[in-house]
Amino acid sequence: MKEQHLFYAPEIALTGTLPADESAHAVRVLRMRTGDSLWAMDGQGRFYDAEITEASPRACVVEVTGSRPERPTHRGSIRLAVAPTKNADRMEWLAEKVTETGIDALHFVLCRNSERKVLKDERINRIVISAAKQSHKATLPQVESLCPLMQFLKDEANRPGQKLIAHCLDMGEGDDAMASAAPHLADIIEADADTVVLIGPEGDFAPDEVAEALRLGWQAISLGPCRLRTETAALAAATLMAAGKRL
Amino acid sequence: MKEQHLFYAPEIALTGTLPADESAHAVRVLRMRTGDSLWAMDGQGRFYDAEITEASPRACVVEVTGSRPERPTHRGSIRLAVAPTKNADRMEWLAEKVTETGIDALHFVLCRNSERKVLKDERINRIVISAAKQSHKATLPQVESLCPLMQFLKDEANRPGQKLIAHCLDMGEGDDAMASAAPHLADIIEADADTVVLIGPEGDFAPDEVAEALRLGWQAISLGPCRLRTETAALAAATLMAAGKRL
Repeated sequence: MKEQHLFYAPEIALTGTLPADESAHAVRVLRMRTGDSLWAMDGQGRFYDAEITEASPRACVVEVTGSRPERPTHRGSIRLAVAPTKNADRMEWLAEKVTETGIDALHFVLCRNSERKVLKDERINRIVISAAKQSHKATLPQVESLCPLMQFLKDEANRPGQKLIAHCLDMGEGDDAMASAAPHLADIIEADADTVVLIGPEGDFAPDEVAEALRLGWQAISLGPCRLRTETAALAAATLMAAGKRL
Repeated sequence: MKEQHLFYAPEIALTGTLPADESAHAVRVLRMRTGDSLWAMDGQGRFYDAEITEASPRACVVEVTGSRPERPTHRGSIRLAVAPTKNADRMEWLAEKVTETGIDALHFVLCRNSERKVLKDERINRIVISAAKQSHKATLPQVESLCPLMQFLKDEANRPGQKLIAHCLDMGEGDDAMASAAPHLADIIEADADTVVLIGPEGDFAPDEVAEALRLGWQAISLGPCRLRTETAALAAATLMAAGKRL
C-alpha cells in the first residue's frame, strides 16, 4: 500500500518553504521535482496541499493550493506529566506513542526518586514530529522541558480541570494499593474536562510529593491491579483518556 | 527503592531447582548463598517462597517454604491476534507491554499484506518471561507462533466469546473510516466474556480477509479516530480490554 508522505512545514503559510531536512527529503530522497504536488502540515492544526515551484534540497519552495484545519480527535484536553525513566529510550518511545494516540501536552517532571535528571528535548521533539507525520496529524503535542515536581504542582495550581495522580504503593505480586483505595481512571475520567494525569518515577513518588499533590487538589487514581512500568502506565493513561474523551 | 527480585522457576514445585539462567543470576550476579530466601513464580499462576539449599550457578537447589496462587487481574479472558510489523522490535516491545497490562494469549497472524513472514518465538518468549518477572506476575501469557490468518480464523470458528476485528480504511489525515462505521471497542467490550481482538498489518487487511472474518462472525470495531501503528493499536486494544474487564 503506497503511503502518502506528510511533510512538516511550520512556515509553509508564511514563507512557502519547507525546512532544510524536509526539503532534502523531498528532493534528494523522494526525488520530487518542480510541479510535483505534496501534502504538508504546520504542526499547529492545519493541513496544506502544495505544489513545488523550486525543488531546492536546502529550502524547497512551494505554492499552497489549498489548506484545511485538522478535525479534533477528542473532547477537552489530554495532558500527561511523567517522571522520565532511567532509560531515555522508554521516554522517546512514550513520546511517539502518545503522539499517535492523541495528546495535547506531554510534561516531564523531576521527582525525588527520579533516576534520570536530564532529558534531551530536541530528541523528544524530533520523535514527536516524526510520529505526527506518520500518524497523519497536523498538530504537534506540546512537549514541556523537565521541571521539578513541586514547581510543576505550583504551576498547575491555578489551572482548571481534572488533575489526577497515579501513585502506587507496591505490595508485590502485581497488586496495587490504589486499585482498592483509588478509583480507576476509566471510572472518573470527565469527557469534556481538561484532564492531566501525573505518573511517577520507577521508584514511585516520595510520600511528601503525593501529600503535596493531594493538598493541592489532585485526585489519586488507579490504573488497575497490574504493576506497570512508568512508560506503560503513562501510555495506558493516555489511551484511557483518549477513549473517555472520544467524540 | 530496593526492588525484590522474582525468579522464573517453572519446575520449582517438581524439582525444587531454578533453570540454568536463573541459577546463574542468583548465584553469580546476586551472589546469593545457601540459606538465602528467594521469591519465585512458575509461570502458571503460582508464587513461591523458597530458601536456597545448594547455591549452584548451574542448577540452584531450593526448598519451597510457601506458595500461593496469583490473584486474577481481570474477568473473562483477554487475547490479541496481531500481524507482526516489519520491524521485529515493535513486536517484542508489544509482547513486553501486553504482558504488563495483562493478557492471556498473544497470537501472531500472517496476512496478505504482512511485510514480515517470520518471527522468532524464543525471543518473544524471553521478553514475556522478563516482563512477567518485572511486573510481578506468576502467569505467563500464552504466545502462539505465526499462523496464516485464514487458518487462525478457522481455528477460532468453534471458540466461544467476543471476536473483534480492528481494520481501518485509511482516509488520510488520521481519519479512520471505522470510527464512524464501527463501534468503539470501549463501547462494546463485554466485561465477563472471553474477548479476542484482531489487529492487521501495516498495509491493513486485504478486503477478502476482512470479508471472511465478518462472515465467520467477527465484529468490526474502531479504536478511535487516530491513525495508530500496528503495535500501538494492539496495545490500545489490550489496555481497553483490561480496563473493560477490571474486577
